[in-house]
Amino acid sequence: MIEHANFPTEPWCLRETALDLERLAQTESLFALSNGHIGWRANLDEGEPHALPGSYLNGVFELRPLPYAEAGYGYPESGQTVINVTNGKPIRLLVNDEPFDVRYGELTSHERCLDFRTGLLHREVEWVSPAGRDVRVTSTRMVSLVQRSIAAIRYEVEALSSPIRIVVQSEIIANEPLPAPRGDPRVAAALECPLVHAEHAAHGARAGLVHTVADSAQVVAAVMDHLVQGPAGTSIEAESFPDLGRTTITVTLEPGQRLQLTKMVGYGWSGSRSVPAVWDQADAALAGAMHTGWDQLCAEQAQFLDDFWQCADVELDGDTRIQQAARFALFQVLQAGARAEGRAIPAKGLTGPGYDGHTFWDTETYVLPVLTYTAPNAAAHALRWRHTTLPMALKRAQQLGLAGAAFPWRTIRGEECSAYWPAGAAAFHINADIAAAVVRYVRATGDEAFEGTVGVDLLVHTARLWRSLGHHDGRGSFRIDGVTGPDEYSAVADNNVYTNLMAQHNLTSAADVAGRYRERAGQLGVDPEEIASWHDAAAAMYIPYDDVLGVHSQAEGFTGHQTWNFAATTQAQYPLLLHFPYFDLYRKQVVKQADLVLAMQLRPDAFSPAQKARNFAYYEALTVRDSSLSACVQMVLAAEVGQLELADDYLTETALMDLDDLEHNTSDGLHVAALAGVWTALTAGFGGMRETCISDGTAMLRFAPRLPPGLSRLAFGVLVAGRTLRVEITATAASYVLRNGKPLEILHHGAQISVTTAEPMVCPIPELPMTGPRPSQPAGRAPRRHSEDRT
Amino acid sequence: MIEHANFPTEPWCLRETALDLERLAQTESLFALSNGHIGWRANLDEGEPHALPGSYLNGVFELRPLPYAEAGYGYPESGQTVINVTNGKPIRLLVNDEPFDVRYGELTSHERCLDFRTGLLHREVEWVSPAGRDVRVTSTRMVSLVQRSIAAIRYEVEALSSPIRIVVQSEIIANEPLPAPRGDPRVAAALECPLVHAEHAAHGARAGLVHTVADSAQVVAAVMDHLVQGPAGTSIEAESFPDLGRTTITVTLEPGQRLQLTKMVGYGWSGSRSVPAVWDQADAALAGAMHTGWDQLCAEQAQFLDDFWQCADVELDGDTRIQQAARFALFQVLQAGARAEGRAIPAKGLTGPGYDGHTFWDTETYVLPVLTYTAPNAAAHALRWRHTTLPMALKRAQQLGLAGAAFPWRTIRGEECSAYWPAGAAAFHINADIAAAVVRYVRATGDEAFEGTVGVDLLVHTARLWRSLGHHDGRGSFRIDGVTGPDEYSAVADNNVYTNLMAQHNLTSAADVAGRYRERAGQLGVDPEEIASWHDAAAAMYIPYDDVLGVHSQAEGFTGHQTWNFAATTQAQYPLLLHFPYFDLYRKQVVKQADLVLAMQLRPDAFSPAQKARNFAYYEALTVRDSSLSACVQMVLAAEVGQLELADDYLTETALMDLDDLEHNTSDGLHVAALAGVWTALTAGFGGMRETCISDGTAMLRFAPRLPPGLSRLAFGVLVAGRTLRVEITATAASYVLRNGKPLEILHHGAQISVTTAEPMVCPIPELPMTGPRPSQPAGRAPRRHSEDRT
Repeated sequence: MIEHANFPTEPWCLRETALDLERLAQTESLFALSNGHIGWRANLDEGEPHALPGSYLNGVFELRPLPYAEAGYGYPESGQTVINVTNGKPIRLLVNDEPFDVRYGELTSHERCLDFRTGLLHREVEWVSPAGRDVRVTSTRMVSLVQRSIAAIRYEVEALSSPIRIVVQSEIIANEPLPAPRGDPRVAAALECPLVHAEHAAHGARAGLVHTVADSAQVVAAVMDHLVQGPAGTSIEAESFPDLGRTTITVTLEPGQRLQLTKMVGYGWSGSRSVPAVWDQADAALAGAMHTGWDQLCAEQAQFLDDFWQCADVELDGDTRIQQAARFALFQVLQAGARAEGRAIPAKGLTGPGYDGHTFWDTETYVLPVLTYTAPNAAAHALRWRHTTLPMALKRAQQLGLAGAAFPWRTIRGEECSAYWPAGAAAFHINADIAAAVVRYVRATGDEAFEGTVGVDLLVHTARLWRSLGHHDGRGSFRIDGVTGPDEYSAVADNNVYTNLMAQHNLTSAADVAGRYRERAGQLGVDPEEIASWHDAAAAMYIPYDDVLGVHSQAEGFTGHQTWNFAATTQAQYPLLLHFPYFDLYRKQVVKQADLVLAMQLRPDAFSPAQKARNFAYYEALTVRDSSLSACVQMVLAAEVGQLELADDYLTETALMDLDDLEHNTSDGLHVAALAGVWTALTAGFGGMRETCISDGTAMLRFAPRLPPGLSRLAFGVLVAGRTLRVEITATAASYVLRNGKPLEILHHGAQISVTTAEPMVCPIPELPMTGPRPSQPAGRAPRRHSEDRT
Repeated sequence: MIEHANFPTEPWCLRETALDLERLAQTESLFALSNGHIGWRANLDEGEPHALPGSYLNGVFELRPLPYAEAGYGYPESGQTVINVTNGKPIRLLVNDEPFDVRYGELTSHERCLDFRTGLLHREVEWVSPAGRDVRVTSTRMVSLVQRSIAAIRYEVEALSSPIRIVVQSEIIANEPLPAPRGDPRVAAALECPLVHAEHAAHGARAGLVHTVADSAQVVAAVMDHLVQGPAGTSIEAESFPDLGRTTITVTLEPGQRLQLTKMVGYGWSGSRSVPAVWDQADAALAGAMHTGWDQLCAEQAQFLDDFWQCADVELDGDTRIQQAARFALFQVLQAGARAEGRAIPAKGLTGPGYDGHTFWDTETYVLPVLTYTAPNAAAHALRWRHTTLPMALKRAQQLGLAGAAFPWRTIRGEECSAYWPAGAAAFHINADIAAAVVRYVRATGDEAFEGTVGVDLLVHTARLWRSLGHHDGRGSFRIDGVTGPDEYSAVADNNVYTNLMAQHNLTSAADVAGRYRERAGQLGVDPEEIASWHDAAAAMYIPYDDVLGVHSQAEGFTGHQTWNFAATTQAQYPLLLHFPYFDLYRKQVVKQADLVLAMQLRPDAFSPAQKARNFAYYEALTVRDSSLSACVQMVLAAEVGQLELADDYLTETALMDLDDLEHNTSDGLHVAALAGVWTALTAGFGGMRETCISDGTAMLRFAPRLPPGLSRLAFGVLVAGRTLRVEITATAASYVLRNGKPLEILHHGAQISVTTAEPMVCPIPELPMTGPRPSQPAGRAPRRHSEDRT
């Protein structure tokens, strides 16, 4: 889509110069605003036309029964699904007798622009009504990153060539009708009218609605107030109904005259507080925002983003399109996680209802690495949210007959919501993924207060899970049988390498913190025997390796399976899961998404360079990338094994995942993990950045930068223990400098260097060793060659 | 239950001498009558009290949507579930002003008796009404094995000590209310009012109802007529309503006077014929039965059974209880299959709605062996039914991306109805089970007309399935990955030994018939290349064996799995599937039901005697028998490896499965396969009977008889190519004789002998070789020691 002529390449914003109604669903996602707490899809101000109306509040969901034609023990009976809450966006406009609707009359111009530095969505429209009256409508929309319960819109309408009678209706609407969902398991369940009226009121320019969610028993309040500037005679009236609050402004504009409306919307919600309390909460937030005022809200927003970009900005010379995509990606990752604070970060952020609004393992594995190094507080909040769900995870483990904690494969509040256990409950690796995110966060920040509390709890309980999930076999190996790894085209296999390596890391990390925080660990009942049993299991962990082929087997037996008949598979049959039975996918060598390859990224120490190259080539030939989570991981390993052009192609794919709608479902929301993967591809891929421990146990970042042809310069920043490290890479050298703080030891292509604030450490980039031929992908599944269309 | 004092041990009937309302659901199943076409649960004549009203017509079902919280490609969207059709049993009785109801007044005596030789269910009741009027009610019920559309009841009521005003209402009732189902996945789905009224009529003593089944669009007609003998002044009137046909007989009986009512019920049903046509069909059947008359119907029934027992009777000296159970089992297997003719034989026969009325692999593997050797026409009909579903199986294979035919794991009409694929669609062994049943039937009967048509089709299409399902690996072995064997506590495993051995047999059998019936095979497109590819795959079939343990691994990797913690499992936690997640069951060494052990029974040639003994002992320690299909198989192998007392214990368990309600769900219908297993346990277990091929390819039966202590004599008959072979076994010798036909070559303990009609061949039984210690079972799961309670 971004390749469309309507989307000019710009470094600091996403701009659309003409409205394409066919792509409305996708642009509603791309231009969505969120602060991790409130999410507004980019539905047009006037409400219609729309593809998918969407307003989301993090953690607001409805329960739905999960039906099973054949039930089984431990299947979750109730699912949680995100709901479209009270919509605070609509500002309808009547031009004389005709509603402003881009489908009628003449749309002279239509431009939208999402500015990554101001955090504002601008829109400017010129429209001639069917009766020939022309107006200019401009709006600026924000979801405040500073005042997290607030969203706001500045809306102006100007009469152009003739006087016009204007009626503006600014609304909050509950229980909007939604389009019927498509028959795709990745789409959300549809719930009609999930909101039950509790209270409504209006006075002055204000109106408010309070609802409860029928079965989840949450309370949701949405209130709005307005500042209006218009010619003399402008009248304002507010009214309310159970599902509608409406402020009506009426005025006649002479040519050149304008009506300006500033709409502020406050939201409040709670699963435990009462209707009056939640209503007050929303009203208070609104009062604060009205007191702040529009200009100051905008200034705060810009300052918040300035602080973020100061550290986090990624600069690419040589590819303006990827430059734009990288900033878009970082901006959206920030929007998803910045202010989630005590709630989950869903797979789609708050940009659409895809996957029922659930959060999965990719939050910890894909999103948190970015936040850890660019907005560490947000990463801590996300892990603290996991920690709040520990009681549910302990209970779930008990239900499954296991020790420790079993975190849910997919959830909103913390309960397991997966209704297909082979690709849900069996994907236990999520527990090790959480543990790895804890370790990564602590190493990056040195946050000992977190480590000694939340960290100990999460690591100990997940280690206990692994210890009870695995067992020693007759040869003394520690095996983890019958689990599902990241690749969802295999399931319920023995000794998945990714799972076993991550579990190993989980076990040793738990042993480490339990040894260092003895009191907390003791309160959890950890004793030296248990710590020893974790060490033993980790040391004896079984990692399947195929001696004949000379590659690691993704799981035991995998390399003996029949290879998928790629030649006989048409491109229309992808994604395979919609055209072939799981039965057939599971029993053959075909990989949906990086699994063994992800293990090589996250446990680089467990593979020799030669193994990495051989494994990468082997799995490249099997991986179809039917998941948005794959390309960025393949990019990182391609870069590591020296396949820089292939890495560049995968970078492009992951960077354009949503902008070009490569998965054909950006309409349901953005792929936040894939967006996070753009940053990881750049830093871990071309930057060669890894977390590593040197021999004395000290955590240290290492870099092994190397750029592909065509990219002349890459710069990025990472926050390490409060210090901003800027890394700048060219074809021949990398320079490292600290923006602040005491010197930092890092590794550059294996050599330890000390980086200071004084002046950049410039290190030459060694020549690329001989690499093998470019690995091939399954027929028709090679990534598009980026070099052929570089802009 | 049979151990209860109310159930005296009798050789030729099942008798209950007092009514136990607590066990009504079970006795409704045990005393059920069926001819494989119509099934009537043994609900009391007066309709209430009842546990589960049940009238079934083979093949009459309703569709129900199969819901999936997370759907997947190829999941069946529509299920088929047996419905309770128009009930022709009720005969209500009003004694003066009070309805005859055993829960009120005084039940002086109540006896029921199911006679295995007459095929009649007798009931005799003496009852004193709450007002003190005493009556004797006797009824005799049959479902005709000769006139397959007919059921009939002779009902008599006699006034005992005082004159009584009697009103008898004989009814046919549609859409009876049913109790809500329990929360057990093995129970049927509940459908309310599945029958839609089409027509009704009444005149004379007759009434009829015609309904359609809403979604399956079948037509069901039930008609009844009556012969009444009573004192002068007996009045008769019939009336009909949409869901009720009723014939009312009114009379006053003096003490000693009786009213005798003969009720005949005709059923007709069709998925393709019209309402008038089906109604006519039922009326015609009824006219025929009325013409035949009650006495002749009874005579026909007795003759039918006499013919059956003549060949099939099993005699046991030394255990009257097992003698009774064995005849009960044979009688019920006959009832399930005798007249199914073009329809499936469901897992519960037509005795209850359990498993939705579906047929599974156990029909071919457990039930057809019995019918093949005792009622071969019924076996042929069952296989011809499978053959009629071939178009659906071909289509299903195509949907799954496979060649040949993929028969459904569970179905009524032929479409796959399994909503949980790991234990459904993935259990591909059903296809080889069907093939094995074909080969067995042909070998036993020499039915070349069948072999050259139905046989070729079934064998070729199933062989094609296996050829496409498996593949040659790098070492040249033919592997079948990711399938589920009989043991449902493992799933989706590679190279299940049972599956691979049965597939091997399927492939070679198909190659054999395709070579002998070239024209038919050629019409199916079979050429020498394809035949060669079947031979190749069969010859290269991979059979996992654990060299360290010296046992076959049930599937690849199985013996490396953790052993289930039996010590920590309480008896209340069985069956495990109701108390533990599949996830945990699948990944551990715990066996629901004989799998590798069944492979040793059905492919005895594939294992050495030493392997059999070691394997048997190994799997005994893992097998919990949470399936009714297990004990009979364990019995056969226990006998083969010389563990005769253990075999005796398993015989007892399988023989009492329903009579003692060991699975706690006989209420939902009888376990027909387990009942069939009683015969198999006796013939294949103590008789050591196996089908085998000698070197020149000739099929031959072999016997290796050996009795356990306590059993002094076992005799049974098998039909081989139209000849009845009687086998009589004592502790020291076996005698073989033919009742008819030319001499038959068999093997006795390895020695070939020729059996004739002239005189019994008496062969000594060699001494039992040294056997190992009695294998042990998981804690608490040993079978009850039969020797301790032998009667």
